[in-house]
Amino acid sequence: MKKSESNDKLELSKAAMKEYGYKVIDLIVEHFDTQDQKTPVSQATRKEMDNLLAEDIPMTPTDSNQVLDFVMENVIPHSNIVSHPKSYSFVPGPSNYISTMADTLATGFNIFSGGWAASPAAAEIEIITMNWLLKIFGFPPKKGGGIFTSGGSMANLTALVTARRIKCGEDFSKATIYLSDQAHSSNIKAIKVIGFKKEQIRIIPTDSEFKIGLNKLKNAIAKDRIAGYHPFCMIASAGTTNTGTVDPLDEIAKICKEESLWFHIDGAYGGAAILADQGKKALKGIKKADSLTVDPHKWFFQPYEIGCLLVKNHNWLKNTFTEKPEYLRDVEGNTSEINFFDHGIQLTRRFRALKFYMSLKTFGLSSFQKAIQYNIDLAEQTEALLRKSGEWEIVSPATLAIINFRYHPIAKQLTEHQLDTINQSISKKITDKGEALLVTTVLQGQIVLRMCLINPRTTLEDVKSTITQCTLFGQEEIQRLGY
Amino acid sequence: MKKSESNDKLELSKAAMKEYGYKVIDLIVEHFDTQDQKTPVSQATRKEMDNLLAEDIPMTPTDSNQVLDFVMENVIPHSNIVSHPKSYSFVPGPSNYISTMADTLATGFNIFSGGWAASPAAAEIEIITMNWLLKIFGFPPKKGGGIFTSGGSMANLTALVTARRIKCGEDFSKATIYLSDQAHSSNIKAIKVIGFKKEQIRIIPTDSEFKIGLNKLKNAIAKDRIAGYHPFCMIASAGTTNTGTVDPLDEIAKICKEESLWFHIDGAYGGAAILADQGKKALKGIKKADSLTVDPHKWFFQPYEIGCLLVKNHNWLKNTFTEKPEYLRDVEGNTSEINFFDHGIQLTRRFRALKFYMSLKTFGLSSFQKAIQYNIDLAEQTEALLRKSGEWEIVSPATLAIINFRYHPIAKQLTEHQLDTINQSISKKITDKGEALLVTTVLQGQIVLRMCLINPRTTLEDVKSTITQCTLFGQEEIQRLGY
Repeated sequence: MKKSESNDKLELSKAAMKEYGYKVIDLIVEHFDTQDQKTPVSQATRKEMDNLLAEDIPMTPTDSNQVLDFVMENVIPHSNIVSHPKSYSFVPGPSNYISTMADTLATGFNIFSGGWAASPAAAEIEIITMNWLLKIFGFPPKKGGGIFTSGGSMANLTALVTARRIKCGEDFSKATIYLSDQAHSSNIKAIKVIGFKKEQIRIIPTDSEFKIGLNKLKNAIAKDRIAGYHPFCMIASAGTTNTGTVDPLDEIAKICKEESLWFHIDGAYGGAAILADQGKKALKGIKKADSLTVDPHKWFFQPYEIGCLLVKNHNWLKNTFTEKPEYLRDVEGNTSEINFFDHGIQLTRRFRALKFYMSLKTFGLSSFQKAIQYNIDLAEQTEALLRKSGEWEIVSPATLAIINFRYHPIAKQLTEHQLDTINQSISKKITDKGEALLVTTVLQGQIVLRMCLINPRTTLEDVKSTITQCTLFGQEEIQRLGY
Repeated sequence: MKKSESNDKLELSKAAMKEYGYKVIDLIVEHFDTQDQKTPVSQATRKEMDNLLAEDIPMTPTDSNQVLDFVMENVIPHSNIVSHPKSYSFVPGPSNYISTMADTLATGFNIFSGGWAASPAAAEIEIITMNWLLKIFGFPPKKGGGIFTSGGSMANLTALVTARRIKCGEDFSKATIYLSDQAHSSNIKAIKVIGFKKEQIRIIPTDSEFKIGLNKLKNAIAKDRIAGYHPFCMIASAGTTNTGTVDPLDEIAKICKEESLWFHIDGAYGGAAILADQGKKALKGIKKADSLTVDPHKWFFQPYEIGCLLVKNHNWLKNTFTEKPEYLRDVEGNTSEINFFDHGIQLTRRFRALKFYMSLKTFGLSSFQKAIQYNIDLAEQTEALLRKSGEWEIVSPATLAIINFRYHPIAKQLTEHQLDTINQSISKKITDKGEALLVTTVLQGQIVLRMCLINPRTTLEDVKSTITQCTLFGQEEIQRLGY
């Protein structure tokens, strides 16, 4: 395409498309092939980005390759590499190549996955993969249902709207909802978005091991009943983003049953761990939930975006989100022709299920099982490694591949404030250096380093080298500060 | 990868990735190159799809090319081609190749676009493209803001949560909201999702030209005030999905100002028309909105998913959706380092802005302008064509590239019921034949055929051939039914 000639069909020649497409593939393959050798952290200020990228609306065309080259040079590098083996923070996004290409197919064919009629195959693949997930989590295969969402935030929101309708109907002015102080912030956000007041939210303290305090939960429910409130929903975490901790699901299920509460489990982070031994044990009781959030773009190794909500009864979603006039409603069931736009909030939906489907088929569930088992084992090995050292303290032991620890040389007898300062510095130094993304979190008032080890390409050597580096930074800091 | 050996890093060799990637590109390029010659409609029952695709969780690996071949043979073909020139129904998705590849880059590098720190470049590109959109729609460039969403449903929902917080605070039990009977169903869905009762929603009838009745709107507001309600928000359509009709925006802005209502415009369908002459005229007053939904995956020719919400003041979003504890809030402004997860509902967000950015840069806004101008002109030419015929009646004239019409041979003096039957049959016949996706809608009680002509590759010849075919079907039906 020549400059200044507009292209009013927005088309490229076949040859130009091929050349451009192959170039994009080369770039992505190169990235997959070399990403482990790159540095995961990229930092920039708004001013730096403005200087590099700010521009007014481009009125005339620019050569497509020139734009691509510009993006590869100036845009793509200024991002953290969340799939890097030393990207330990938040929840890493290890991704996989098959899903990347599956997503490309979904985009290339621009498949509309809202209703059955628009794409019977997209709806069918979503039904099939949902059935796989129902089976994995022990949900009823025929009666159960679910939907892929943009992520955990929307899955939680979709669950809570469903819970609200079923438990409260239209008037939820006295309804109260319960979750622990370690529950993910997306739950609070969803609760407020769907119209609850702050005074209807009960944040229940966790115990010393970051599990919700059951006695405190029971007390809160009882107190609310006496005060005339209507306890309607409990959100359990499985596991928490901070520590990987799973709330006691069996016990919570019992309370929910006794109290007639909706039982939602936010398993956005930890749900997939059910495929590994330790996870299966930790997640016992997960099948008792009324609704369950799982995030395939976390520990099912999918690229962004794909979240998922499972429910015990697929009609719950349909009856909550169908907006069509009665006379247009299709006869529908889990064995029928599902219009997924009637099972959630989005009308236009991309074909998210395809990447989950193709990667499961290509690698087999056994590969996912082994990867997840490897992740959990690696965190336990990391814990063992740190416990042997006289300089490191485990603050929260390896749990579903997350471990929290801090630099704490016993011999030095440092104050809590000094420890906070040192650990914050270690995080800043290693992140500034760019070689590892390792940020802090706050647990029981202490600033700690947190590793989330769900990348199957992260090796024990990677972890060791990062900890060695952190130890050096810790020693430097002690010297510098004169502790 | 051999069968039965699991792949616990979920990796492919570099050579395998290249081969697979090139194959995917070949398939997509072939599709772009030949899609206009394909048939746009693909229908299948649940039973057919089950027979073809249903399977249990695949435990062991399958050769990646075998899976890809299976998907290309059995999944991809069973979808309507929404980018086909004769895909006239709902809102077509013409898409474009550059955006498809940009999305592939975003997925390939798995860029997390939630917070500034995770990807300064992704945040910056979202800020830049949002500024382009603010400028296009006449919103204040410094003070204004916005966010890309999964689509119009989420953009509308995000707007309404913002409106509710600002106009009502936490107690919205007496708040009422106004929209026309032609407003998109996603608005009603959003209103219910965020916690309003049915009795708080006012559906205002439209006039004979499908615009909201202003007098009826004023009456409803006045009546609600007398009854002790709190009118807080008006949703105008620009344009409606049925007919492309734009509500009288200037007049509504005036009412909203007088009544202190939040003024939201759902421009998911028609917003982009502002780039063409007729659209600019029809959308006069759009800049007076407090919030505006636009859907780049509709008339900005982007592949799914990308919706957009613009607001007059970017702080409105930040103050509505920030969930972080106070002490963690970053200093932030439109000239600062925006964390988009604090401006909307999603925490994890894919890099949607990249496709909008790269396609605008590559084609230039002038190409988009010409494409949209072409679309609107084509609908007007279609109207002229139909008006000349003695067999067709225009039910709603060409408006922002949408036209509604019905087969109605004057000479025959058919009843309304007979006309409904014939037009329903025409739609069924042409869709069953697969050569055009042309479904009906109901306007003022009449079953009519609806064309949405936003595909820049649709020619007047395409339209003529479809209408010729429809005329034949109409004549056949009259004969068959003995009218």
